Amino acid sequence: MGGRSGGIAVCLVSGGLDSCVTAAVARTRYKLALLHVRYGQLTERRELRAFNEIAGFYRVPIERRLVVSVDHLKHIGGSSLTDRALSVPNADLKRREIPSTYVPFRNANILSIAVSWAEVIGATRVFIGAMEEDSSGYPDCREIFYQAFNRAIRLGTKPGSKIRIETPIIHMSKSEVVKLGFRLGAPLHLTWSCYRSNGPLACGTCDSCALRLNGFREAGFKDPIGYRLRG
Amino acid sequence: MGGRSGGIAVCLVSGGLDSCVTAAVARTRYKLALLHVRYGQLTERRELRAFNEIAGFYRVPIERRLVVSVDHLKHIGGSSLTDRALSVPNADLKRREIPSTYVPFRNANILSIAVSWAEVIGATRVFIGAMEEDSSGYPDCREIFYQAFNRAIRLGTKPGSKIRIETPIIHMSKSEVVKLGFRLGAPLHLTWSCYRSNGPLACGTCDSCALRLNGFREAGFKDPIGYRLRG
Repeated sequence: MGGRSGGIAVCLVSGGLDSCVTAAVARTRYKLALLHVRYGQLTERRELRAFNEIAGFYRVPIERRLVVSVDHLKHIGGSSLTDRALSVPNADLKRREIPSTYVPFRNANILSIAVSWAEVIGATRVFIGAMEEDSSGYPDCREIFYQAFNRAIRLGTKPGSKIRIETPIIHMSKSEVVKLGFRLGAPLHLTWSCYRSNGPLACGTCDSCALRLNGFREAGFKDPIGYRLRG
Repeated sequence: MGGRSGGIAVCLVSGGLDSCVTAAVARTRYKLALLHVRYGQLTERRELRAFNEIAGFYRVPIERRLVVSVDHLKHIGGSSLTDRALSVPNADLKRREIPSTYVPFRNANILSIAVSWAEVIGATRVFIGAMEEDSSGYPDCREIFYQAFNRAIRLGTKPGSKIRIETPIIHMSKSEVVKLGFRLGAPLHLTWSCYRSNGPLACGTCDSCALRLNGFREAGFKDPIGYRLRG
């Protein structure tokens, strides 16, 4: 388990595979403070359940769990993940343009919340499970974006706060994340990745399901959650 | 009036003096889209009224007005502006440390919302009325912070969005802002700056009232709003 002398780390936990494995990494060095952001996505009910179950698995005390709703991303619209007038497309992993599931500048909104909370509770790290390769081309999933954001944090928080974003899986492939999750004993059976369904079965055909299923397949593990179709 | 051929600019309008003058500047070159963020501050009711009256004054159509609540900054706490357990201090303009009214990383939260909205409505600018000198030492009011944030925007939004933050009054003193407001015919009588009171009179003794009253005095104008005390 290693020492957890690093202080507190805020970890963004959507309830998906990537953030769950990221929490497992953060936990090897820090005390976890888990943040879940609801932003009007179609599957927010199911994701919140996954968040609570992961927090329970890691025995994170209530005062270090925070769930916030940012309804404005829903009102602002512009994404098929939050706008009921647009439909979530089927997977097309060779697509080159940014897909309609992109929520404009979403990660900056979420990170800003995390940094505000980190400053108040005295955390020095914010962990986010962004992945550059499997990110469907979202611009705010690239390491260079986090480097720029770290500079904004350094200049925009109290001197001495020393808050920094960490992206431990940013250069991993999905199958590497799956393997790392198994190695760290992360509760992958509690995670939820599907963009379309609130359960009990994931759709198996959206981008997010397709990437996840590919990842398990390449890693040589069976995905412990259930699917309607395995695309 | 000049041409407004620059496209759309999202302008953050808190309802205070600085953001009202900033909107007056933005309006000389852009079509205005006004954003007001409620974050649980004590005076949010009065500030919302000021926002609506300023938007009405400039005849901004309803589809280019957005009011969002970010309750999480209240839940997160840490500031006397949002935490009822702390009291708003009296003005001490010689104070050197960051005062308790500082809301951790507030401007990053607000800017992220503005950028998300800008990307959806096709705006290319986000105007914010931050001021480095009269900012009570808040770290996220410094130009260097906005430069860093601009880089994060460039890297975190769709290529081609071309969104940039503008801070037209960042190096002005409060009295220069007052003079500029009068010169541009900004509706200063509709603005509200007080940290403590929801009206009808401003307290006159908090940091924000003290800075504003100083600014009008130095500029040689009478402040058109009413005060309980003129500190």
